[in-house]
Amino acid sequence: MNGSTQVWREELSPTTFLERAAGFLADKVAVVDGQRQFTYAEFASRCRRLQAALVSAGVRPGDRVAAWCTNSHVMLELHQAVPACGAVLVPLNTRLAAAEVDQLLDHSGASLIVATREHAVQAAEAAGRRSIGWVAESSSRDYDEWVAAHEPVEHRWVASEEQLLSINYTSGTTGTPKGVMYHHRGAYLQALAMVHHAGLTAESRYLWTLPMFHCHGWSFTWAVAAAGGMHVCTRSVEPAEVWRLEEAHGVTHLSAAPTVLTMLAEHGRSSPSDRRVHVDTGGAPPTPILLERLDALGLDVTHLYGLTETYGPVAVNVWRSEWDSLPTDRRAALRARQGVANIVSMPLSILDAAGDAVPADGRTPGEIAVRGNTVMAGYFRDEVTTAASMRAGHLLTGDVAVMHPDGYLEIRDRRKDVIISGGENISSVEVERVLDTHPAVVESAVIGVPDDRWGEAPVAVVRLREGCSVEDAELIAFAREHLAGYKVPRLYEYRDLPKTPTGKIQKNLLRDDLRSRRAGERSGES
Amino acid sequence: MNGSTQVWREELSPTTFLERAAGFLADKVAVVDGQRQFTYAEFASRCRRLQAALVSAGVRPGDRVAAWCTNSHVMLELHQAVPACGAVLVPLNTRLAAAEVDQLLDHSGASLIVATREHAVQAAEAAGRRSIGWVAESSSRDYDEWVAAHEPVEHRWVASEEQLLSINYTSGTTGTPKGVMYHHRGAYLQALAMVHHAGLTAESRYLWTLPMFHCHGWSFTWAVAAAGGMHVCTRSVEPAEVWRLEEAHGVTHLSAAPTVLTMLAEHGRSSPSDRRVHVDTGGAPPTPILLERLDALGLDVTHLYGLTETYGPVAVNVWRSEWDSLPTDRRAALRARQGVANIVSMPLSILDAAGDAVPADGRTPGEIAVRGNTVMAGYFRDEVTTAASMRAGHLLTGDVAVMHPDGYLEIRDRRKDVIISGGENISSVEVERVLDTHPAVVESAVIGVPDDRWGEAPVAVVRLREGCSVEDAELIAFAREHLAGYKVPRLYEYRDLPKTPTGKIQKNLLRDDLRSRRAGERSGES
Repeated sequence: MNGSTQVWREELSPTTFLERAAGFLADKVAVVDGQRQFTYAEFASRCRRLQAALVSAGVRPGDRVAAWCTNSHVMLELHQAVPACGAVLVPLNTRLAAAEVDQLLDHSGASLIVATREHAVQAAEAAGRRSIGWVAESSSRDYDEWVAAHEPVEHRWVASEEQLLSINYTSGTTGTPKGVMYHHRGAYLQALAMVHHAGLTAESRYLWTLPMFHCHGWSFTWAVAAAGGMHVCTRSVEPAEVWRLEEAHGVTHLSAAPTVLTMLAEHGRSSPSDRRVHVDTGGAPPTPILLERLDALGLDVTHLYGLTETYGPVAVNVWRSEWDSLPTDRRAALRARQGVANIVSMPLSILDAAGDAVPADGRTPGEIAVRGNTVMAGYFRDEVTTAASMRAGHLLTGDVAVMHPDGYLEIRDRRKDVIISGGENISSVEVERVLDTHPAVVESAVIGVPDDRWGEAPVAVVRLREGCSVEDAELIAFAREHLAGYKVPRLYEYRDLPKTPTGKIQKNLLRDDLRSRRAGERSGES
Repeated sequence: MNGSTQVWREELSPTTFLERAAGFLADKVAVVDGQRQFTYAEFASRCRRLQAALVSAGVRPGDRVAAWCTNSHVMLELHQAVPACGAVLVPLNTRLAAAEVDQLLDHSGASLIVATREHAVQAAEAAGRRSIGWVAESSSRDYDEWVAAHEPVEHRWVASEEQLLSINYTSGTTGTPKGVMYHHRGAYLQALAMVHHAGLTAESRYLWTLPMFHCHGWSFTWAVAAAGGMHVCTRSVEPAEVWRLEEAHGVTHLSAAPTVLTMLAEHGRSSPSDRRVHVDTGGAPPTPILLERLDALGLDVTHLYGLTETYGPVAVNVWRSEWDSLPTDRRAALRARQGVANIVSMPLSILDAAGDAVPADGRTPGEIAVRGNTVMAGYFRDEVTTAASMRAGHLLTGDVAVMHPDGYLEIRDRRKDVIISGGENISSVEVERVLDTHPAVVESAVIGVPDDRWGEAPVAVVRLREGCSVEDAELIAFAREHLAGYKVPRLYEYRDLPKTPTGKIQKNLLRDDLRSRRAGERSGES
């Protein structure tokens, strides 16, 4: 509580939204998780009991608490109670191997693991290896009993809004873990941005097809309570289950990686619905064909862009109604762009190598640079990498994009995925987008491999639609219709694509694999 | 610009929203004002020119700039440029008399007056009396020429979000002016709250039926740019003109005092519209009859509550869809409540005389107390009154309300308007609400006057519908059907009600008038 002459200051914290919602939506369902559901009063009370339980387990301000959780009421409760204790939430990617988890537990210095039933055994084992505490659903240290055994404590406000809220480890790469630090202020503002851009209200029902461990589910873990909406948890993302929940609960909103949307489109739904669902997606832009299929299924897709380092979506493809009347291909091209800064972000910049903004001509590539309150507070215990990620007051994203004349940006590639062939830059994303429109192709990844003549040459790794087959020559001819000759891959592989748990294609794995095999071939040739 | 290790911090300021909108909505109309309209690019450019003009006129950080403006592009431009200079905006109520303006100029220490053409002459005179600078539309120191004569300067961020943004003088009462201090942080958050609760988007068209000088038009002066919507200015609030603009520009949103809504309902519209308009109103709750009329005119009314001291609306009557199926009178009763804390406010409290929360029983009255980032930073140059307005970390509002079991609050009265008769508290608002439902009554004010027997007795001042007449006895009988006998006024006066420029009935004037006349009568009797 502040002094009487400064009542105008309260520290911004995303945990405050629940207190407000519980005050006037007490009898309204806040969370559905399988057979269980909790009203806002019950949910708030559980969070306060959990807070008491954490304190009695020795959790103190600044301590790290690891969450090994599927999308569940447990994870939502941890999102409230851990930060309300002044402690730091460390969400674990649920697909990590034991050794990877050990590395993150060591790096974060977590003193407690809380797990859902799917990870109870692994959590107990990991805690044993590190001699730290653990609690899990359906276990000998049962989460529900633990929570129920404590009396609710009053919400305590955080001492400072710039206090550490969480550490989010980035997925996919090897080497030292990069622990992205979030503070309360950033997450509060990001949650408000998501409320606005998704159009959440107290009538919204949000389906959890995005992992909560990934950037706190783009802050929807808090945004839903800010609006007073309803969480619908899914512990696994099976298409049939997603459609069942969508119907059973009248879902109005969901977010998902492109791979999940592809899966939903491939599966289809048994019965059509008049209800439209607002869908936010990040990563690769959805192809026109995918957008059409999703539209027929009642899903209205908005394309977002962001990094773990920007609290998830920092750009939103804000749609303008005058675009509705454009031809389909033009609409698809507009929809594939990453868009503009979200409502709480500063305007996004695209910088050239000298650090100057590139012209807004839709052609000149540069690196996306971000500033604002939703840029990470740095990498945990890694000042060198933190400093390297920032320049002239901006966070450098490593993403190469162009700025269109209308102020919308469009990603050309990850900086490290750009292929340099015969002195020309080839955007792997541009080539993939063309290949993905071929009727036989579900998705593709285009990788640069060393080439004696050109320096690098593009290779296409392609996943074909179930029951389809295609000749290399056909894809080459198809690509030639849309791309300059030097951009067209000459080599094709047909296989499944490796992905991160959040659905991103792991080009680094493909690149390593292709390069080592080609190196082997070439040494065999010599 | 922050250092490279703290890119995650930008000071929150409502002036940043325009920069973002201008980046991607450059060609979209931002402001319509009579025959003139400006795109976002033009509007942003004008604001930057104005900023340069202010600086060249000697305006320095911390200086006060008085705005004597009707609802206009000028006022919107001042809302951007003055705070962007680090200076302090002082909006003047456009109905003030010269002596009142002089008092505010002295109290605020304004060094410059900027006026719209309607107040050009007054502004020049006032500036002359105080020997300070002035600029006005259509004058010898022409606003447009002044702005055009300067090159745009780059937006400079404020040094601190807790820096003084504006001084808003409260209306209506006598004595020392009370200058409510706003800071950038509070206005930024309030603007985001208004975006959410009004559901503003880039497709919204906001009609200015609320004075911009009143709490910065509830921060819609900035919220519209935050969403990328369009401002439609009205320099006077004539019903025919309001309906004309509503049709001409496809208005989606407006805010207005109850008196303006009454006026719109009385006037009606010539042609019906299918489009629904989101209407926010504050002050007295709209009667069921008024709500029905407005509904037929396409206006969906949401009831808000707030004070100048809370950046305008701090409470919103968040509607729950399950209430749609309730009987009309029950719906009207729910709609008349003031609601719940807005999305950026801390939960509202209703405190008894000892400072404890009253039970949420819908019956026990207490004083509404507010805390959060949208509570004023105090009264300018008045620490005593500032301290007196706050208790135990809350701002005391002076409004008496009850808390309903569902967490929605409902105002019973202004603390100073409560009538104490025969030891019983009479809520003037409760009595007025009954009288206002009588078919012959447009609006009423119930005032306590000294009474030898009861201490105070309620007197009703009533404005009758055009062409209607009614006997005291009929109103007494009507009120008796709904109210306890001691609450029913015995004395009636039929006349227009004096109002503040923001449409609040000036009970203090009525009270003074009634009391002095009654004192006169009584001394005459004796």
